[in-house]
Amino acid sequence: MTQTTRIVLANRPKGRPQPTDFRTETAELPELQDGQVLLETLYLSLDPYMRGRMSAAKSYADPVEIGAVMVGGTVARVAQSRNADWNEGDIVACGNGWQTHAISSGAGLRRVDPDVAPPSTALHVLGMTGFTAWAGLGNIGKPAKGETVAVAAASGPVGSMVGQIAKLRGARAVGIAGGAEKCAYLVNELGFDAAVDHRAEDFPQRLAEACPDGIDVYFENVGGPVWDAVLPLLNLYARVPVCGIVAHYNDHGETTGPDRLPGTMGAILSRSLTLRGFIMSEFMEAQMGDFLTEASAWVAEGKLHWREDMVDGLDAAPEAFIGMLEGKNFGKLIVKVADL
Amino acid sequence: MTQTTRIVLANRPKGRPQPTDFRTETAELPELQDGQVLLETLYLSLDPYMRGRMSAAKSYADPVEIGAVMVGGTVARVAQSRNADWNEGDIVACGNGWQTHAISSGAGLRRVDPDVAPPSTALHVLGMTGFTAWAGLGNIGKPAKGETVAVAAASGPVGSMVGQIAKLRGARAVGIAGGAEKCAYLVNELGFDAAVDHRAEDFPQRLAEACPDGIDVYFENVGGPVWDAVLPLLNLYARVPVCGIVAHYNDHGETTGPDRLPGTMGAILSRSLTLRGFIMSEFMEAQMGDFLTEASAWVAEGKLHWREDMVDGLDAAPEAFIGMLEGKNFGKLIVKVADL
Repeated sequence: MTQTTRIVLANRPKGRPQPTDFRTETAELPELQDGQVLLETLYLSLDPYMRGRMSAAKSYADPVEIGAVMVGGTVARVAQSRNADWNEGDIVACGNGWQTHAISSGAGLRRVDPDVAPPSTALHVLGMTGFTAWAGLGNIGKPAKGETVAVAAASGPVGSMVGQIAKLRGARAVGIAGGAEKCAYLVNELGFDAAVDHRAEDFPQRLAEACPDGIDVYFENVGGPVWDAVLPLLNLYARVPVCGIVAHYNDHGETTGPDRLPGTMGAILSRSLTLRGFIMSEFMEAQMGDFLTEASAWVAEGKLHWREDMVDGLDAAPEAFIGMLEGKNFGKLIVKVADL
Repeated sequence: MTQTTRIVLANRPKGRPQPTDFRTETAELPELQDGQVLLETLYLSLDPYMRGRMSAAKSYADPVEIGAVMVGGTVARVAQSRNADWNEGDIVACGNGWQTHAISSGAGLRRVDPDVAPPSTALHVLGMTGFTAWAGLGNIGKPAKGETVAVAAASGPVGSMVGQIAKLRGARAVGIAGGAEKCAYLVNELGFDAAVDHRAEDFPQRLAEACPDGIDVYFENVGGPVWDAVLPLLNLYARVPVCGIVAHYNDHGETTGPDRLPGTMGAILSRSLTLRGFIMSEFMEAQMGDFLTEASAWVAEGKLHWREDMVDGLDAAPEAFIGMLEGKNFGKLIVKVADL
């Protein structure tokens, strides 16, 4: 018998999640049936969308039930197999959630080749966040050569891929991030054309200076005051993939004025803007294979760079997650659950 | 020598236009040159966009200069021709503005066949407003069979075409209009599936009842409180062609709270909505011919209905225009400038 340790949702948070909204449990897993594999979690991805799943509000995905294991993308090792498609020791990308072990029928497992890149990259550059950037740009943003692509939370796993893919497509990449260290990273290590610190007092003016030809694609994943600075810079026919509005995830109740909607609707009308919300699952079945082919080649050619912020042990997940919602991490936040 | 009578912009209105913002003048037209035609205006279209052109504010089109002829779509007869492409008596759609006669090089004239439909329809069902509805639905709304299409200002020239084209494409049409008479007209004469009076106190609830399967396409041409009632009804992947926000045309300065933007952005994200602003000129060159072919066939088959609100004589234009901005007309507002 195998024991799994897991972190479940104890309470639905009101506003900022607290450590007490999570609870750690252990459970015995049943014997493997024919066709099943036992998976040992190596890496757990922590992502902002999980905050939404902790709420009961209607959304594109069902909420996590109280007492249920927190959802999450994982990389795991096949520890035992009674499935002919999988061998002990295979590395897979899967969605085990916040737990050390899980049993799978094999459905939905994606093989990870450790010779292409470190397996943890299956959680970002060669995984969900990379695909989110690739699919949002490819299906909605559609940057043309020479156009300007702006992205906020640009040092994060989605934003850093948005900028790098924009560059690979021949566009100009402008990143928005918090603090000088992250901005330097964008330009010096990821190759962005410019980076702007949203904490600067004259942020709107600095952003305008960084985008002398306006903005053709704004990859929206933060909302809030950054949007107010971006809106006047959007060009005629600009495209805005709306992938997240982290600034509002902890909102509850009515927001105070002024009412910013008429200004946004007026800009949509007068500049023929496109705003399109999406989550990557819309495009996953049709396009994930193409993405992995293209992105794996980029990785092999050294054209994609990334940064991981790895914390150790499943117990560290709640605190790391709460910190991430406040922007404390720098790089893709990953929990190392077991040694590779 | 031919004399033209024309109405020019005398002053830029502050708020509601006044009769004194217009001035009537007469002028002698020069002799026709080779290649030119003399046009006699038969019908002048009056449309809300003209209010914007009276202001100096930056928009997608240049303002009318003080002392210049008010712009406007017209149907005219060729009164004299020194152009081999046009014969005396030909009927054309053109943009003569608010005047009785004009000289043209022939560029931009569109032939109107009086055997297809009454020539005044070239100003609405077979003209700009019809094309606006057709292009917004075809390029952005893309209603599928069985989907629900909602439109506000539904008894107006754009809205009435949106609903009728939606029906012809196999979708369900729900119109929003002001007052019982207009709502009855939508259902009984235009064939909408349902009509909802936005003046009703329980308007949001009535709209929800009229859209039991939600809304897949909302053709936005009013903004304001109607949007707040529509937003919760929009389905996953709903499309919103943004064609006008009349409710905000008179806004100035900061709008008071609550801030409605986070709610709209949250819906865009969680329901993968598309909002896309447009003006019909974007699609005109590529698609106007296809539109006229399809819509002319619909007219010939009796599948499109319309209502004209015709006033007599160019002198009546200013008062009719001012009344239109207050919603006094019922049907496409047209000035009959000369007998057909």
